[in-house]
Amino acid sequence: MTRDVADTPTARFGRNLKKLRSAAGLSQEELAARSGLHRTYVSSVERGNRNVSLENIFVLAAALKCDPRELLAPPSDGDGA
Amino acid sequence: MTRDVADTPTARFGRNLKKLRSAAGLSQEELAARSGLHRTYVSSVERGNRNVSLENIFVLAAALKCDPRELLAPPSDGDGA
Repeated sequence: MTRDVADTPTARFGRNLKKLRSAAGLSQEELAARSGLHRTYVSSVERGNRNVSLENIFVLAAALKCDPRELLAPPSDGDGA
Repeated sequence: MTRDVADTPTARFGRNLKKLRSAAGLSQEELAARSGLHRTYVSSVERGNRNVSLENIFVLAAALKCDPRELLAPPSDGDGA
């Protein structure tokens, strides 16, 4: 049985953001505060509902202290991470 | 002597796009036609003047048949590629 999750760019980004935020032990509120973005925006991004800009990709990565490329990783890459 | 190039997200993206486009042997016009984006937009992105959206990052990567993460690579990564 294969996973049948949407792999649109925004869905992929949202899943990666949520995973990396959780791994960092941060709430959406804490990530929002660190990044200077609004909590409802962060929530919307994680749900795959936002066509995030390049600059906000880097802002979010900096807040998570990760490489921005990690936020674009395909589903199979980080499943065991 | 170190290279002193701007490493803003948009400048980084523009350099990577230009490098990968050239490596693929495509003109800006050809990349524009493949991606469905306007040639002046592609040109502007390459000059680091556009805060490209996530969806257009994936569109450009698909047109170049590369991983979208390659377009976010830091300057040192691909200098010899």
